[in-house]
Amino acid sequence: MSLYSERPSIALLPSGFADLLPGEAEAEARGIATVMETFSRYGYERVRPPLVEFEASLLSGSGSSLATQTFRLMDPETHRMMAIRPDMTTQIARIASVRLKDVARPLRLSYSGSCIVVGNQGREADRQISQAGIELIGPDSAQADAEVVALGAKALAALNIAGVSFDLSMPGMVLELVEQSIDPEHKDALLHALDRKDVSAVGELGGSIADILKAMLGATGPAEQALDKLANLEFSGSVLAHFERLRASVKAIRESAPQLHLTIDPVDFRGWQYHTGLCVTIFSTHSREELGRGGRYLAWDEPACGLTLRPQALLRAAPKGSVKLRCYVPAKLDDQQLSTLHDEGFATVSALDGAADPMVEAQRLRCTHIWKDGAISAL
Amino acid sequence: MSLYSERPSIALLPSGFADLLPGEAEAEARGIATVMETFSRYGYERVRPPLVEFEASLLSGSGSSLATQTFRLMDPETHRMMAIRPDMTTQIARIASVRLKDVARPLRLSYSGSCIVVGNQGREADRQISQAGIELIGPDSAQADAEVVALGAKALAALNIAGVSFDLSMPGMVLELVEQSIDPEHKDALLHALDRKDVSAVGELGGSIADILKAMLGATGPAEQALDKLANLEFSGSVLAHFERLRASVKAIRESAPQLHLTIDPVDFRGWQYHTGLCVTIFSTHSREELGRGGRYLAWDEPACGLTLRPQALLRAAPKGSVKLRCYVPAKLDDQQLSTLHDEGFATVSALDGAADPMVEAQRLRCTHIWKDGAISAL
Repeated sequence: MSLYSERPSIALLPSGFADLLPGEAEAEARGIATVMETFSRYGYERVRPPLVEFEASLLSGSGSSLATQTFRLMDPETHRMMAIRPDMTTQIARIASVRLKDVARPLRLSYSGSCIVVGNQGREADRQISQAGIELIGPDSAQADAEVVALGAKALAALNIAGVSFDLSMPGMVLELVEQSIDPEHKDALLHALDRKDVSAVGELGGSIADILKAMLGATGPAEQALDKLANLEFSGSVLAHFERLRASVKAIRESAPQLHLTIDPVDFRGWQYHTGLCVTIFSTHSREELGRGGRYLAWDEPACGLTLRPQALLRAAPKGSVKLRCYVPAKLDDQQLSTLHDEGFATVSALDGAADPMVEAQRLRCTHIWKDGAISAL
Repeated sequence: MSLYSERPSIALLPSGFADLLPGEAEAEARGIATVMETFSRYGYERVRPPLVEFEASLLSGSGSSLATQTFRLMDPETHRMMAIRPDMTTQIARIASVRLKDVARPLRLSYSGSCIVVGNQGREADRQISQAGIELIGPDSAQADAEVVALGAKALAALNIAGVSFDLSMPGMVLELVEQSIDPEHKDALLHALDRKDVSAVGELGGSIADILKAMLGATGPAEQALDKLANLEFSGSVLAHFERLRASVKAIRESAPQLHLTIDPVDFRGWQYHTGLCVTIFSTHSREELGRGGRYLAWDEPACGLTLRPQALLRAAPKGSVKLRCYVPAKLDDQQLSTLHDEGFATVSALDGAADPMVEAQRLRCTHIWKDGAISAL
């Protein structure tokens, strides 16, 4: 009888939590290392906040939007409530504002780590989420927006991920347009219609801005086409300012990343609770899975633009990497020879049972090669 | 007024939890990568269990000894109790016994990750603990013991950590000797005296084994000397078997690692709740800080020998690694040129504010070099 059937409750993991097995775990670690190395090359310095903080700290500012997704723990030391991070952005903002407040801006930080979310009952989504991201803190400019987006694209390229779309939005445009022109009692219904992309409901509920909103809905698509369509609309005031900034950011992104698949959805505002400017969602065009997201926000009082990649999704989108070839070696092989094999990329699997037939053992232990008579040979 | 003084409660972390800042976080990540690469080279395949499991699973078997050090969470999905791992060994044993039960033995696994412990009130110890370790599952032999110990030494060498002592013990020797010869009502007092290394109390409480126990206390020291002293004592039965195995394991370790600083404490038994054979604690001889520990135990029903290193302690013991040199570059430097700088080991810090004086900006942003007139120059 297998151990599994004897101990079903012990073998079971809570939904949303998973083991990564050999191969998977190695691929995740290598993927995160590749992304973090790309960030490091562009001057983003790594910080590592703890998994647990006081609730008051972790859920302050932009973190408050994640309050219902956060597990709490009581600190037996202080009897204050602590929380397990559901996201790392708030932590990076805290580090920038407190620990690194005297470091010159622009401050470029990178991070990677695991987060835990409460999850939504009945949904089979991950509850432990790996993140690897960057924050560019200080400047508020199109060029800063573009640096973050383009560096995200470089990280994906380093993983050889093809078929990627960067979907831009500027939630302030549509939100401020509605705010300025629509009575408070009709606002929610209109926003709901916009979110559903329900053109006829937008026409009915849009009042004096119905036409402009319908035109914005129709502008969704490839970035340059969308900008051309939006340029014909009569924006004014802060809405116009948002549009001009969107155009400037796209122009700056194009300078670094002329080939990037870039789209604009000018009425996308949902899911961007604390963002103040350009927002971006990165999708795999094959699976429509979200690979990462980010945007402009305030890190405490400072302008910031960040991007968080999801290594688990990246690995599903990336081509399979090679694993180490495994070479079966005698127990007493000297260190010099082992080092040579390691430098050639082999993992060495040492004989432990001197009596067993090396060829049989090598195959049983999933080796691809064997060290025999002073030389390596393929199995 | 600084942000810190405005928001003292938000800036504060619970004791035992810390931010790693630029430099520190990079060093930790690089240290873990070095250790894991060493494990990988010797055929140890990486697995990655989740941070959270059901309590019943995480605290089963050898995990039960950590029950009081474990934070619990209620799973809103199933209303069952989950726990945040205080250690990864139980998880690796579960993966080996369930997920990898059909994979041929010896099974060599490696892992790295963070653990959270409740901590001891009033003590300023870490409550988030990084671990990086190996498990060799299947064989129960001196050679397997030695492979694990020697690979630990290789990982420390890869980090250039000097001044390391591997302190061996065989808790079964003293525990079974006491079990066989001492009345149950006097056992605890004697074990307490042995733990304190109180020779006169051991003499008083040791009854018929007082002399042998005192001789064991006196044998503590460099491994070969200790073995010679112990060889003169009249062990029998299972105690003798433990001694013979200790001797065989030391001999096998010496074959792989002739220069290793190896000591034996034959009366050390405390802190090895679930171990069944050889135990090892790795110390820095400079700081006496514990760098790692491990030993032989049962992974569910299977013989296993494991070793867990503590990357935070390793980094305190390791020489400081070099950080990337930072080169300030104009905003429009082309990708080809950036790649060349990256391949030479530079992090590039891109100009964002076109109007600023590049030399001033480069210094302000902690750059060591600047790209100017088509060439790199040191600042």
